[in-house]
Amino acid sequence: MARYSPSIQQLIAELSALPGVGKKSAQRMAFHILAMEDEKANSLVDSITTARKLVKRCSVCQNLTDSDPCSICSDVMRDKTTVMVVESPRDVSTFERMHEYKGLYHVLHGVFDPLKRKSLSDTTIAQLLERLSSHPEIKEVIVATNQTAEGNATALYLARLISPSGIKVTRLASGLPMGSDIEYADDLTLASALRGRIDLDGE
Amino acid sequence: MARYSPSIQQLIAELSALPGVGKKSAQRMAFHILAMEDEKANSLVDSITTARKLVKRCSVCQNLTDSDPCSICSDVMRDKTTVMVVESPRDVSTFERMHEYKGLYHVLHGVFDPLKRKSLSDTTIAQLLERLSSHPEIKEVIVATNQTAEGNATALYLARLISPSGIKVTRLASGLPMGSDIEYADDLTLASALRGRIDLDGE
Repeated sequence: MARYSPSIQQLIAELSALPGVGKKSAQRMAFHILAMEDEKANSLVDSITTARKLVKRCSVCQNLTDSDPCSICSDVMRDKTTVMVVESPRDVSTFERMHEYKGLYHVLHGVFDPLKRKSLSDTTIAQLLERLSSHPEIKEVIVATNQTAEGNATALYLARLISPSGIKVTRLASGLPMGSDIEYADDLTLASALRGRIDLDGE
Repeated sequence: MARYSPSIQQLIAELSALPGVGKKSAQRMAFHILAMEDEKANSLVDSITTARKLVKRCSVCQNLTDSDPCSICSDVMRDKTTVMVVESPRDVSTFERMHEYKGLYHVLHGVFDPLKRKSLSDTTIAQLLERLSSHPEIKEVIVATNQTAEGNATALYLARLISPSGIKVTRLASGLPMGSDIEYADDLTLASALRGRIDLDGE
């Protein structure tokens, strides 16, 4: 005997397929959706179809955007000489929240990850190289991939590809998080903080 | 500066409004939806619109169903003399999973809950009384509302409404969960298990 009517079961199955949504939460979401006002349900469905229709990759930085080029690439106030390379659109949003970085971005949409069968051609590295060669004003590439094995491998690979062209390639500092206790730091972070130690007398 | 393009922000806002979905999970879900194959995205949207179009309340038991009467009410093998009153369609699914109960259901779609401004007229108690009076074959009503203050109040109210008609009204036993330790039981459960103690010599 089916536990729910077919259309409810189908809805629960579709919702369970979303990331981080288990069977129980999918059930709660399904009954919530069924109980919604028509207007709210339409607005939920519209937001999905509209976003899927409008959102594309910016032809310059490959970030997801409604308008091409994106609002960051077309912002005349941004520093066009610096490009920060990040793994995902979420990383752009994190840096923008900080309100400190004023340069441009390049979104890789992935990193080299043999375990997930992701090769470098699944990323937008080719578009980055093309962009660097057609925009001589770019003087520095900040590699801000995650501090993971894959992120580091990708960073080293990018440095090897880009450095010969004379563009400066930098990597975000790794080390102890601000406000953290040395006692609780893991060995890799400690080692990295030691290697990257800075001269307190100034340079 | 907007953190995401307008259509992505809208999608994240809509997803955050679902129960149990926080800002971070909404972001993950949004990017997952944006990256989906067209076919899968259509199937997600279709499941929402189809379920909302097809699903209605069964005219007999008020459970959510695609076909009226629902598959349980129209099943000739079910025992038509017993009706179990539950709070929500999810409770029906829980009992059906057990494969032990063979009677019919009545879904209240709520309980008396003054804190949430839910009165008895928000439930399907009126439909239950109507159903009992037009179906003289019903001999027992099992009240399976939750073991909460609201569920208990609703159960007592139902008993007072229905008992005069000569229909037997019962309530699910409350007590110690199977396999549980007395040491860890809360006082209310222990008191209820004591009050509901059964005679081991048989009746």
